[in-house]
Amino acid sequence: MIQITLIQIDNYGPWTVTPTPRTESDLQTLQAELYADVQRQFAAKNGLVFFNRFDNLIAISNGLNENDHLQIQRSIRNRYPFTISMGVGTADNAYEAQVKASEALQNAGGAQSEERKEILAVDSLVSAEDSFVQIAHIDINGITETLTDKIPAYDTSVIVTCTQYHLMTELRDHDALLFFIGGDNYMSPCNGVSKEELEEVIVKIKEHTNVALKAGVGQGNTAEIAGDFADLALEDIRAGTTDSSVLILNGK
Amino acid sequence: MIQITLIQIDNYGPWTVTPTPRTESDLQTLQAELYADVQRQFAAKNGLVFFNRFDNLIAISNGLNENDHLQIQRSIRNRYPFTISMGVGTADNAYEAQVKASEALQNAGGAQSEERKEILAVDSLVSAEDSFVQIAHIDINGITETLTDKIPAYDTSVIVTCTQYHLMTELRDHDALLFFIGGDNYMSPCNGVSKEELEEVIVKIKEHTNVALKAGVGQGNTAEIAGDFADLALEDIRAGTTDSSVLILNGK
Amino acid sequence: MIQITLIQIDNYGPWTVTPTPRTESDLQTLQAELYADVQRQFAAKNGLVFFNRFDNLIAISNGLNENDHLQIQRSIRNRYPFTISMGVGTADNAYEAQVKASEALQNAGGAQSEERKEILAVDSLVSAEDSFVQIAHIDINGITETLTDKIPAYDTSVIVTCTQYHLMTELRDHDALLFFIGGDNYMSPCNGVSKEELEEVIVKIKEHTNVALKAGVGQGNTAEIAGDFADLALEDIRAGTTDSSVLILNGK
Amino acid sequence: MIQITLIQIDNYGPWTVTPTPRTESDLQTLQAELYADVQRQFAAKNGLVFFNRFDNLIAISNGLNENDHLQIQRSIRNRYPFTISMGVGTADNAYEAQVKASEALQNAGGAQSEERKEILAVDSLVSAEDSFVQIAHIDINGITETLTDKIPAYDTSVIVTCTQYHLMTELRDHDALLFFIGGDNYMSPCNGVSKEELEEVIVKIKEHTNVALKAGVGQGNTAEIAGDFADLALEDIRAGTTDSSVLILNGK
Repeated sequence: MIQITLIQIDNYGPWTVTPTPRTESDLQTLQAELYADVQRQFAAKNGLVFFNRFDNLIAISNGLNENDHLQIQRSIRNRYPFTISMGVGTADNAYEAQVKASEALQNAGGAQSEERKEILAVDSLVSAEDSFVQIAHIDINGITETLTDKIPAYDTSVIVTCTQYHLMTELRDHDALLFFIGGDNYMSPCNGVSKEELEEVIVKIKEHTNVALKAGVGQGNTAEIAGDFADLALEDIRAGTTDSSVLILNGK
Repeated sequence: MIQITLIQIDNYGPWTVTPTPRTESDLQTLQAELYADVQRQFAAKNGLVFFNRFDNLIAISNGLNENDHLQIQRSIRNRYPFTISMGVGTADNAYEAQVKASEALQNAGGAQSEERKEILAVDSLVSAEDSFVQIAHIDINGITETLTDKIPAYDTSVIVTCTQYHLMTELRDHDALLFFIGGDNYMSPCNGVSKEELEEVIVKIKEHTNVALKAGVGQGNTAEIAGDFADLALEDIRAGTTDSSVLILNGK
Repeated sequence: MIQITLIQIDNYGPWTVTPTPRTESDLQTLQAELYADVQRQFAAKNGLVFFNRFDNLIAISNGLNENDHLQIQRSIRNRYPFTISMGVGTADNAYEAQVKASEALQNAGGAQSEERKEILAVDSLVSAEDSFVQIAHIDINGITETLTDKIPAYDTSVIVTCTQYHLMTELRDHDALLFFIGGDNYMSPCNGVSKEELEEVIVKIKEHTNVALKAGVGQGNTAEIAGDFADLALEDIRAGTTDSSVLILNGK
Repeated sequence: MIQITLIQIDNYGPWTVTPTPRTESDLQTLQAELYADVQRQFAAKNGLVFFNRFDNLIAISNGLNENDHLQIQRSIRNRYPFTISMGVGTADNAYEAQVKASEALQNAGGAQSEERKEILAVDSLVSAEDSFVQIAHIDINGITETLTDKIPAYDTSVIVTCTQYHLMTELRDHDALLFFIGGDNYMSPCNGVSKEELEEVIVKIKEHTNVALKAGVGQGNTAEIAGDFADLALEDIRAGTTDSSVLILNGK
């Protein structure tokens, strides 16, 4: 089972324009620092965070218990001009786990509620024996040679975002999530999705966008292990050890 | 005229997998810190950076000269495990400026070249008298009530990314760029785009995605001033001071 | 028993002047970021780091095992332009523990050796049942009213440094360490030092420097618990719950 | 003339214990991040900040005008749980400049006043033509071979702090300030202090502490230039280009 934590800045929208709109460069710096910070703290316990929308971050949190979450909330409260609330859910697939995490948090109050503050709403936690994470690390074949070094930087960005959008749509049908992680890289928490299904997704993306992808998939007890093995699988594909666009490695 | 700086991490892809793939949480932290860092330094001189693809950042850099760029490059070299190269271009519209910035940098060597290191490739710089920046700050109407507090967090993310992709496509026809800046917010450097054109873009997005947008537009000598006035315009629309989905304010 | 980790930047001195001296503001930023970073990672596991000399940081690391240390070393290697080595030692008092940590690291190679790189030299680790940390949080009585708001800022700094030096000297006789932690605050890892001994130290400092101090002392299994109870003890003294300049609270 | 800015966190002491004492590791991280942040922003305009007591930072701010200071205050307000106030003073020597900066700020309200918030109290600013900064970069001869690699880490720290204290005392007689900057390094803003006076200070320190020092001194229009030339002077001494313990280089 996969455990997903939804992290939400409390009442952030209103804060950004109170008393007058805050300078955008400051907000951008603040959001990026929060992400780096929360990432470091989840990673210290073998989790992995995706920036998602920056004010709503999504983490794979297998291995983190209630106290671990509370410690991170305290650390943010003591150093930022706002607090963060969290919802935690678990399921056999990543989509369902985030549904539970979202509902737990929504039941505790709205994102722009003035009352809701530093809530930890736990729907469920994964036990050590049930803990299982599958992550696909997906990238675009040969992007540097064909795009980055050839066409204007922004045109490459359009292609990368187009690909992201289509990946989100296709993977949604398999109850998997999809996040952009920089460059031409995406990560998909995809418990329960088979090699064949991922190959099909990649074929469909190629049809829609003419972008050729490959996916290294890792499995493990924690997001860190699954991510590490996904990277190794991607390296193996690059090295030509398989004819497929998908390779799954199990980090036990 | 608008001045655009393309910031590229030198030889980053190969570095991330040398000697073996580096832990993803570390890379995510690193990329977010680099963005926050570069943002703060451009902002200190009234510029504004968009994270774009994190390994390729795009800045509005009106007001920054060659020395300002060199100082930022030095600061990164002294504190990160890599260096950054930059291309700078100027034009009447943002798209064309980034084309020039991209070409200047590409001419200096490839993103994964082992030889290219900390290049500053300046195609052109805007003089103080010619400096003009127009930024649209676009957001989704009532997202918290209709989406964030109602549907699963990830479903909102899909809608936000879908909207981003369509905005990129539509604004590209007007030679404007479009960046996601977190939450349900986008910023578009859009010199030369009229109120009517932006209203049309918003109508088209509504047709494609059923998402209703509004755009506060600011104009000024620097990205900071343009951004501040875009925020004020957005607040004015929220306050009901106009019937249009677009309002332009000129910061002198 | 207390467990002390000595953290040393590998070959830092030579790096700061290669190929020519690096800009001091960059080095200051880098050192402060490294400290904040390492602090956050030790703190995620209930440890506490003192900046000490910035290139040699000293941590109370009860509760962190070998893997925890390795994970922090990896995280720094992946994001900084240098690596860090660590020595770990344990003893009944903090001074002896850092002697062992220092010797373990020194035996692995010199701080400016080009060969030594990311060494983890463990002399010993404290077991869960033997883990015990005592921390004194010491501050200057009424510094804001008598110094900060009255005399020039730098003159206050001279008094704070003078007090630090005398505290280091006096506490050294009791096998305790002493670190400045900002403002008018000091922290002393002081396993085995009694209330009476601390009262004597405070009397001696008053004689030498005419500065009046108080010390809240906390005890616990980890640095976090000991630190928290030290803070509570200090608050109790401020609130007038004791006539003594020292109060010890046990966080069990 | 040298321009000194005193940066003070508003009402910080009370905040750290409200509603109960905040976790020390969080405060340490926060203070180090604030320092790194303020440093980066002053450095972007060729200034240099010393961490001093972390809640009271001292900057050489030649070249920064009122707007530059306001921009930094805004940036901190938008990203931290507190605000900062500043006092600015100028004089022929660094000590006197900080006296004026301190007085300007003290006149605007106390450090723990609940009313004083984000004050910018400018006593005076240096004009471009009068701007002059002299900085001595002082270090301990051969510390790695004789101390770091030989004796316990903490014993070296005691020697470094002892040296700092004596340097502060001696340089105070020459109206110069002295800050520890990490490792075995100190920096002294020392406008008006001659080579002979610095040589005498070094002789006295040797007598008091048996620690042998050297000082590279740089002069320039800004702290950045003065600091760079101080570093170069120190390298020249190390390279044996002079028999003296002090060398002054003028960066024009």
